[in-house]
Amino acid sequence: MPAYTAPLEDMRFVVHELLADERLQSLPGNEEFSADVLDAVLEEAARFCASVLQPLNRSGDEQGCLFENGVVRTPDGFKDAYREFAAGGWTGLAADNDYGGQGLPETMDALVNEMLCASNLSFAIYPGLSHGAYRLIRRYASEAQRNAWLPPLVEGRWSGTMCLTEPQCGTDLGLIRTHATPRGDDVFALNGAKCFISAGEHDLTENILHLVLARTPDAPPGTGGLSVFLVPKFTINADGTLGPRNGITCGNIEHKMGLNASATCTLNFDDAQGFLVGGLHQGMRVMFTMMNGARLAVALHGIGIAEAAYQGAVAYARERRQGRALDGPRSPEQAADSILVHPDVRRMLLGMRSQIEGARALSTWVAARYVHAQRNPDAQARDDAHDLVSLLTPILKAYCTDMGSEAANLGVQIYGGHGYIREHGMEQLVRDARVCQIYEGANGVQAMDLVGRKLPAHAGRYLRRFFQPVAAFIADNSDNGDLTEFVAPLSEAFALLQKATRWIAENGTRDPNEAGAAASEYLRLFALVAMAFMWARMARIALASESKNKFYRGKLATARFYMQRVLPQTASLYACIVAGGSSIADFEDEAF
Amino acid sequence: MPAYTAPLEDMRFVVHELLADERLQSLPGNEEFSADVLDAVLEEAARFCASVLQPLNRSGDEQGCLFENGVVRTPDGFKDAYREFAAGGWTGLAADNDYGGQGLPETMDALVNEMLCASNLSFAIYPGLSHGAYRLIRRYASEAQRNAWLPPLVEGRWSGTMCLTEPQCGTDLGLIRTHATPRGDDVFALNGAKCFISAGEHDLTENILHLVLARTPDAPPGTGGLSVFLVPKFTINADGTLGPRNGITCGNIEHKMGLNASATCTLNFDDAQGFLVGGLHQGMRVMFTMMNGARLAVALHGIGIAEAAYQGAVAYARERRQGRALDGPRSPEQAADSILVHPDVRRMLLGMRSQIEGARALSTWVAARYVHAQRNPDAQARDDAHDLVSLLTPILKAYCTDMGSEAANLGVQIYGGHGYIREHGMEQLVRDARVCQIYEGANGVQAMDLVGRKLPAHAGRYLRRFFQPVAAFIADNSDNGDLTEFVAPLSEAFALLQKATRWIAENGTRDPNEAGAAASEYLRLFALVAMAFMWARMARIALASESKNKFYRGKLATARFYMQRVLPQTASLYACIVAGGSSIADFEDEAF
Repeated sequence: MPAYTAPLEDMRFVVHELLADERLQSLPGNEEFSADVLDAVLEEAARFCASVLQPLNRSGDEQGCLFENGVVRTPDGFKDAYREFAAGGWTGLAADNDYGGQGLPETMDALVNEMLCASNLSFAIYPGLSHGAYRLIRRYASEAQRNAWLPPLVEGRWSGTMCLTEPQCGTDLGLIRTHATPRGDDVFALNGAKCFISAGEHDLTENILHLVLARTPDAPPGTGGLSVFLVPKFTINADGTLGPRNGITCGNIEHKMGLNASATCTLNFDDAQGFLVGGLHQGMRVMFTMMNGARLAVALHGIGIAEAAYQGAVAYARERRQGRALDGPRSPEQAADSILVHPDVRRMLLGMRSQIEGARALSTWVAARYVHAQRNPDAQARDDAHDLVSLLTPILKAYCTDMGSEAANLGVQIYGGHGYIREHGMEQLVRDARVCQIYEGANGVQAMDLVGRKLPAHAGRYLRRFFQPVAAFIADNSDNGDLTEFVAPLSEAFALLQKATRWIAENGTRDPNEAGAAASEYLRLFALVAMAFMWARMARIALASESKNKFYRGKLATARFYMQRVLPQTASLYACIVAGGSSIADFEDEAF
Repeated sequence: MPAYTAPLEDMRFVVHELLADERLQSLPGNEEFSADVLDAVLEEAARFCASVLQPLNRSGDEQGCLFENGVVRTPDGFKDAYREFAAGGWTGLAADNDYGGQGLPETMDALVNEMLCASNLSFAIYPGLSHGAYRLIRRYASEAQRNAWLPPLVEGRWSGTMCLTEPQCGTDLGLIRTHATPRGDDVFALNGAKCFISAGEHDLTENILHLVLARTPDAPPGTGGLSVFLVPKFTINADGTLGPRNGITCGNIEHKMGLNASATCTLNFDDAQGFLVGGLHQGMRVMFTMMNGARLAVALHGIGIAEAAYQGAVAYARERRQGRALDGPRSPEQAADSILVHPDVRRMLLGMRSQIEGARALSTWVAARYVHAQRNPDAQARDDAHDLVSLLTPILKAYCTDMGSEAANLGVQIYGGHGYIREHGMEQLVRDARVCQIYEGANGVQAMDLVGRKLPAHAGRYLRRFFQPVAAFIADNSDNGDLTEFVAPLSEAFALLQKATRWIAENGTRDPNEAGAAASEYLRLFALVAMAFMWARMARIALASESKNKFYRGKLATARFYMQRVLPQTASLYACIVAGGSSIADFEDEAF
């Protein structure tokens, strides 16, 4: 079974060196978070993940959740682990002090979440959704509601869910049928059925706050007629204590490919009491707060799984002896060399590593920008940061989750036949990672969000928030000879991205199917350039560092691999984009 | 659950049109196989797969094999299905009439095998290994042995296995410890343990013939000291009846990611009676007969799974309604359009389809060449055919199994959340497909076989058997304006392949690690060019055909998609290859 140790050295590098320019400590509310404090948080999270969560990952997969008479039981050990997790303050890590949270910047939340996902993704789903519910309630609920709902959520006594999907509607939320009938005073009676609701029912918390997208009577058709309602599992008395059970029942849990310890529920609403949050017919706008946060969180699912797979594969590659190095035995005293000597094994490991570290840098940068979007005293700075986060959210969600599956599969491949056997734990990573490409908006939907909404937004303003710093970095570093091997490929790939963007702007305006046909390849091209930007910045730091220790040497070497062996994918993606979509659009439906 | 219907129209196209030049009917032993006979075989196989095998695929996955007291029980229905399979003569489809077989050409075997794998890969493993055992015994066993062993194998009363792997050795067979002690008259006593033995123990046949790679006393170390022994589960009396149980026990079956209905066994040999087959210390050469056949068979596993995933995804895409076409509603009378209107969904479907049909064409062409290698009266023609089969075997094995996993994953993606739920059957395809990239030599090992053995073989002679027909096709068709859109991209990609080949020949000779670092990308580049060759040939036939029906229009349109949206991958692969392996070789082991 792969052991997992949080990559603290790399996380510290990202926070303290790569993102030093972000000056997060200068923002209001962050002043007290010295480097030492942040490091201590990361170390404590690492300890908790290694000692408590990771040991439950395999057993949780084998045992799964149990559904019986409407009750869902999580696997053995999950309740105790959750209790310890909440007691440690982790449920409120990035929540405001006002509601009992730790108030740490979201960069910390992102890194700790990566650790949770790497050690036990099924477990991470439960508190992950609570934090999304926290954000939504904090932003859109009334003061009285915030005071009533947020403290127990932050404390971890209650948890949250996101109820969107119904049997007939996933991507197309306009088809939602669940309806909410007014009962006076922003109180509604909800009726309908939701499916695929993660953490919809479980035994970890005293209460569950469901955030439900539903339709009110006489609402306009489509998504414009949807509103968000908070529907608690147990009704809540005026004094905050729990009242009788609300009209929500869990009809079943799904039997899935993976994530067996995460309960995926069918929920039936039968005159359930719900509270309107964020205004009538504002459901999409309100829910998108939670959804965008969830999309960034899902990117971390991908990175976490990939890191777990990488660590497992490295350990196995060191220990497994098969064959000899092509240029002569490395361990002549042994019957065979370790498979780490084989170029193809190293290629797979470096493919994983270069994408994981690049993605960690990129996602933490976006988390830092998110902190600016929330806390920067300057309105323009907040808006600029928000633009970049909006642009990169679908890119991170899709790229990191594709990468998570790819890395998990490479992990199995390096293990060979042993990787296919359940007891070694590597195949579980493949099964668990797979859904990340689907939930919170399938990756193709992310690509459409990018080309259909984010590119044209405000005449390309979002895009400029990314293109400008990249262009500036290239210009600033074009004279640095030592950096040429990193800046030159970045510059070339960036030029392709700019050309592809123009191509889509021109052709997609003329024919939206052209944008649709190019979307997935464009998203990947964009992601690879964004990762190259991160790698060039990391290489610059590593080159400039006075320390030439193993860590910095490894950083430089990984950057080199990324530029030489991963980034060239951009050429093919560009060629596919500009080949256009006629071969897709013209294909006769009947011929499929 | 995805229904599966064998793609008979495409199979007939491949056999009767694409491969007409192969003139298989003119070869000795094939004369009686008219087009009608071949079509009837395909139709009957299709019926059997749809009505008997496919309905057992999901239940077999859920139930799995049961191991108890050394006995393995296959899932409900498998015994009856196997009995019907054997009674239908399918176990002897491509076996010689002399031994009770049908004597059909291997092209038929390949297509029927694809159907078996598409409908129930776990089931297909059992008879698949028997056919490999048949080939080995037929080629290397004495006449008396052939007469004793082959008829029950062909009849399906007995089955076969391939026993290579041991806990400490997979790829590196030189580490094998199982040993064989002579007992006189080519009889040996085998002792040792084998693992990951597919169909190593089960309840489908009366007897199991294990072909075991083992070491004899005083044999040279490494692979040169290995020999192949036939070790029957039950000893065989002189009259062909079964004697007492031999000294082989099944220690356990593996709990795997997928292929749950295929028993993967640990076998213990305890003074088991074995018969030398093919000469002392000739084990590798002898076993490679079976292994090469198995590699081509595994390519069909990939194609079969991919076809099943494609069919499931198309059916779902037609039926699932979500959102609207980007250029306006297609079904305004419905609440939403079918997701088949979305360019990204079509892109995924065409990605699957173009690779499946290309791979089917390529693998059937190789099967036809195999028939020539066996039956062509002209020795030179036999050798030439053998060279091409040898060259393309690792390419087909790796490419088709990577494609199988990719297609299975795309199938899940198109299903969205429903794809992740077990009951829909799509996620099973992902789990079942995954091991195909590993077994019979992991795909990285195939790539090393290609660059390390097949490229340099006989000063590039194998390579010329492929390069020459491609060059000739390009030259012959460069004046055909209607074909330019197919021939021009083929020609460009072929030029890249030739350049990459030269690069590897030059740099790999200087430093074998350079060949190793390029191997996987080179194999994929080669496969994409080989597929483009098939697509250009198929496009030529479709263009020239008098019929302009849906099938031929679909062929042309799919060829177009392949050239425009799949083949451009070659540019990036080429760039990665010529970037060289220094970023891989120079990475410090300690930094991983």
